[in-house]
Amino acid sequence: MQDMKHLIRNVQDFPKKGIGFKDITTLLKRGSSFKDAIDRMASLYNPDDVDVIVGIEARGFIFASALAYKWGKPLVPIRKPGKLPAETVKEEYALEYGCDTIEIHKDAITQSQRVLIVDDLLATGGTMAAAARLIEKLGGRVAGLIFLIELSFLKGVEKLSDYRVDSLIKFDSE
Amino acid sequence: MQDMKHLIRNVQDFPKKGIGFKDITTLLKRGSSFKDAIDRMASLYNPDDVDVIVGIEARGFIFASALAYKWGKPLVPIRKPGKLPAETVKEEYALEYGCDTIEIHKDAITQSQRVLIVDDLLATGGTMAAAARLIEKLGGRVAGLIFLIELSFLKGVEKLSDYRVDSLIKFDSE
Repeated sequence: MQDMKHLIRNVQDFPKKGIGFKDITTLLKRGSSFKDAIDRMASLYNPDDVDVIVGIEARGFIFASALAYKWGKPLVPIRKPGKLPAETVKEEYALEYGCDTIEIHKDAITQSQRVLIVDDLLATGGTMAAAARLIEKLGGRVAGLIFLIELSFLKGVEKLSDYRVDSLIKFDSE
Repeated sequence: MQDMKHLIRNVQDFPKKGIGFKDITTLLKRGSSFKDAIDRMASLYNPDDVDVIVGIEARGFIFASALAYKWGKPLVPIRKPGKLPAETVKEEYALEYGCDTIEIHKDAITQSQRVLIVDDLLATGGTMAAAARLIEKLGGRVAGLIFLIELSFLKGVEKLSDYRVDSLIKFDSE
């Protein structure tokens, strides 16, 4: 299996000084590599063990959508506040300064559905932990969490220790 | 071919009084319907005539991504300002009050690539017209524009008359 790490572009000082941003657009624009990434995510699970794929706005949609399409499974978006039109439930999570909120439609998940949550990048894990709480609030069961990239030096998996976590690409240092 | 219109939920007075918002999450959460929507989009083109799939943030990502995966084609995001980390080109478009901007990475498209742009909803066509201008600024050729939903009473196709436009679901009135 070919390493995908070299397809991720590091953009220094984005979005602010001192941050090395992991740019996935260089992977996405190679059709065979994007397809390969989705196929590798799919190979981690038996689709019979998953009922719903959840994607976190906005880049998470890219991976969740293709995976849902591949498996013919329902796709459910978790979004930033004010984007989902029907009744929602919300969860807050801490940022470096202040906090942020994500939400999901109340009717998106039914009792005991087994849910796979997909996002592009695991940093400190705050967004994904909040996403998992949203699924559980609605009575769903978190089957697992999949990321394209994990910044393992930020130890986000520790915040997600109740769940199975997989990532295709790991960065051990900035 | 089954009509998909009944899978779109109308949410009245969202995001503001008097607007009937077309909610696609009710279609997405039926796995077979989401898959069917993507397959119908794919059936509109011979994949040999398309080099790149472009999705417009955020709901456009959902359809563009699955289509790119199906065909094994490159996926390129068009995003709101400040989200893409590398060098971009920008286009403005008019809103009811004021204007908005979208951007694309400068290295996303190469000369003469044939580009299919995908979004969830055609309203007045302003965003998509700006997206098409972005592709042409980079030297790409717009092979066509695909929407899940067209609000045909808003006559957005008139703003896109230089291009082939397809949509799977048409609403003729509010």
